[in-house]
Amino acid sequence: MIKPNSTRGQGHRFDPIGLIRSPFTDKFGIPRQPNLATAAEARLELLPPCDREECFRELEGFSHVWILFLFHAAIDEGWRATVRPPRLGGRKRVGVFASRSPHRPNPIGMSVVPQLGLERRNGRLSLRLGAVDLLDGTPVLDVKPYVPYSDSLPDAAPGYAIGEPVTLSEVEFTEEASAEVERCDPDGRLKLRALIEQVVAQDPRPGYMARYPERQRFGMRLYDLEVKWVMREGRASVFTLEPADTEKP
Amino acid sequence: MIKPNSTRGQGHRFDPIGLIRSPFTDKFGIPRQPNLATAAEARLELLPPCDREECFRELEGFSHVWILFLFHAAIDEGWRATVRPPRLGGRKRVGVFASRSPHRPNPIGMSVVPQLGLERRNGRLSLRLGAVDLLDGTPVLDVKPYVPYSDSLPDAAPGYAIGEPVTLSEVEFTEEASAEVERCDPDGRLKLRALIEQVVAQDPRPGYMARYPERQRFGMRLYDLEVKWVMREGRASVFTLEPADTEKP
Repeated sequence: MIKPNSTRGQGHRFDPIGLIRSPFTDKFGIPRQPNLATAAEARLELLPPCDREECFRELEGFSHVWILFLFHAAIDEGWRATVRPPRLGGRKRVGVFASRSPHRPNPIGMSVVPQLGLERRNGRLSLRLGAVDLLDGTPVLDVKPYVPYSDSLPDAAPGYAIGEPVTLSEVEFTEEASAEVERCDPDGRLKLRALIEQVVAQDPRPGYMARYPERQRFGMRLYDLEVKWVMREGRASVFTLEPADTEKP
Repeated sequence: MIKPNSTRGQGHRFDPIGLIRSPFTDKFGIPRQPNLATAAEARLELLPPCDREECFRELEGFSHVWILFLFHAAIDEGWRATVRPPRLGGRKRVGVFASRSPHRPNPIGMSVVPQLGLERRNGRLSLRLGAVDLLDGTPVLDVKPYVPYSDSLPDAAPGYAIGEPVTLSEVEFTEEASAEVERCDPDGRLKLRALIEQVVAQDPRPGYMARYPERQRFGMRLYDLEVKWVMREGRASVFTLEPADTEKP
């Protein structure tokens, strides 16, 4: 494993412009693409000197932004020349630069997400974001407007990332789990039910089941909740939500 | 002006994975979008430890890649909260995060460009690239495959970046300039004529003429050549190519 941040000269230091606040408080279960979980709203909490409205003037006309961020939870693990992308079921190795893996020489990620406007809360300026695939606490390096004229290439050859990722057909909740969703999100502000449905529907990752065919029970963390579900014949049943051990991640 | 690289804690250091070799040896005249100059071929010359074929395995199936790079020529100039994008004729200020300006808190740029495969030259591994908008010598931080399923949003609202950038209708060459193109690029390997046509056709930048209406003569550097043209009634006439003063940039 090669660690990033070795001294090769010409290094450049970056400081985050802000931090992501999102429902994803654990790496496991995070959508691999932002548009897979439309209920996953989040915000970018801005840090000085970037916490000024004027830095975002005229952004309102753009529906989407690029978020460039640090894969901060992957930094310490370093990188390898080849990785096994989930798209290929975790069975085949491709080059790190032929992948969007978080484990890369410079661990910068990019996601295109809907921007929902600025908001001040307790004196802190945030940019509200929709449909994110970003871990809570992710340091953000840059925000850029999505410009379809230059960024949208619908006919680009997609390599092995052909077609849409496979998702499950059905997610059901036990009565107990449904009641718990009601209790945790009474006014629906967190879109908790839709969020759990979307996240569970695309998990376990392609290939995960093939590697652990006997596994049926899964859990993941959303906000401060541990969500658990069981898988049978391609159907997921969410059976419990309980307060997560805050020390876990 | 706020300088990047101030110490705000949590800073992260990046080292380039390689350097761009492109025809654009001077900032002036560089296309503002990579797809505006299809003749602008370039290569990413890889540095250790990323100069290994296996780092790019399976990239051949993707027609395009994202290049994340340092706006190295803009770093020393710092950034402001608002900028005047060329799309708005340089007349209106927008927030830095509502722009793709090189002058930003973390001066990282991203361009989507065709990838043309790996090549070894004098023992050095390069990734060949088409239609770039990148300055020669640009430090590259990352290469990622372009995945249309997640990256292509043709219906995203484009804000003020609506429609295609304005380009001139016609570029002509004087006889002397044509002869010089022949002399400098006898086998057409550099696509020099097309490159000059494409670059001159989209320059001067929108707003540039409005701010300097009396200006008619322009020059820019491509490779080690100084290209000069005159503008009359929206038509450009390239009248000379001569060896550039190597001290200029």
